[in-house]
Amino acid sequence: MMTKVAVILSGSGFLDGAEIQESVITMLALDKAGADYQCLAPDMEQMHVVNHLTGEVSEGEQRNVLVEAARIARTQIIDIAEANPNEFDAVIFPGGYGAAKNLSNFAVKGAESTVQQDVLQFARTFAAAGKPMGYVCIAPAMIPHIYGADAKLTIGSDPDTASAITEMGGIHVSCPVADFVVDEERKIVSTPAYMLNVRISEAAEGIEKLVNKVLEMVDGK
Amino acid sequence: MMTKVAVILSGSGFLDGAEIQESVITMLALDKAGADYQCLAPDMEQMHVVNHLTGEVSEGEQRNVLVEAARIARTQIIDIAEANPNEFDAVIFPGGYGAAKNLSNFAVKGAESTVQQDVLQFARTFAAAGKPMGYVCIAPAMIPHIYGADAKLTIGSDPDTASAITEMGGIHVSCPVADFVVDEERKIVSTPAYMLNVRISEAAEGIEKLVNKVLEMVDGK
Repeated sequence: MMTKVAVILSGSGFLDGAEIQESVITMLALDKAGADYQCLAPDMEQMHVVNHLTGEVSEGEQRNVLVEAARIARTQIIDIAEANPNEFDAVIFPGGYGAAKNLSNFAVKGAESTVQQDVLQFARTFAAAGKPMGYVCIAPAMIPHIYGADAKLTIGSDPDTASAITEMGGIHVSCPVADFVVDEERKIVSTPAYMLNVRISEAAEGIEKLVNKVLEMVDGK
Repeated sequence: MMTKVAVILSGSGFLDGAEIQESVITMLALDKAGADYQCLAPDMEQMHVVNHLTGEVSEGEQRNVLVEAARIARTQIIDIAEANPNEFDAVIFPGGYGAAKNLSNFAVKGAESTVQQDVLQFARTFAAAGKPMGYVCIAPAMIPHIYGADAKLTIGSDPDTASAITEMGGIHVSCPVADFVVDEERKIVSTPAYMLNVRISEAAEGIEKLVNKVLEMVDGK
């Protein structure tokens, strides 16, 4: 049986959805490693739509997280509320503001944030089964909600973000782009990618290592 | 001086814009090879917007090619009408229906198609300078318009598409996903990628080879 990995997307475009480059690099690394993957996303309106040319919010425009994420997934995506966590051996969350605006509200609420209900239920059920999960970029800001206090993670080195995560009960470890942080007990792997100002091949190096580490932690592989 | 490559995008999402995975794989391969790249796109409305979850046209919705392409480019993109072809050593067109719906109207008009004016002017000026260009997926359908008759290219093996290209004056060569076709005289490299029903790592193999071949054809490198 091939290892089956859920890749959880949060839209399509780093300012209001999933970081496209991180998402594609994750999928490519999984496929290269011989793992099967399935993209999932919540069926919900995005927090907002950002014009990626100007960086401004596109007032009045609405887009759906699942529908936009289908652009990255080439239509092969399912609603996370309909997905069964027990069917997967591992889960990876690419980053992008979508993880902090749609999958959670960390971008707005910081230490007071919550995680979207369908995502939280899927992730908690999966984590409770003791299976490995990988979190890229800003996605690790959801870790304290999913695992409770004292989970070890990185979002790179941004002091304000790290401090909000500490306040939420997470243990933040600074990490360069080409590396990753592992919480061995909880089987959590995280890497900063575009939380740092890096080139695409630098982000890819950390993500490829994260993918391989997550796959290595899958039981019996 | 680093080799500078223009990557010409056609939106963001393969059913109405640039194929996201092909675009990211192209950028990653260029960066890994030590080349500098700049994304370009035309500033125009998309032919239409397709819901990538259902595959249906989203009636009444409008999106701009340059603005959407900025999602893939992480905001680092410029209007092709403002770009100077002489500043680049090579050009690559990723695929996706956007190449046949926005950069050209091949998806609608087939052998009677034309190429968008800003794109055509940029590409013809660039081609006239004898510099190498790479075309992925359906983007090679623009080659006869840019180079005139008898240019050698591939769109994989689809007989109807190949026949329309032949009618336009192109010389179609069937090609598997892991390979590419070269017109040595005109310095054109093409590879089918997602014109074939393949896995992401298979598409990546052909695109990485295309990128390396294009870079190898840059004068003095």
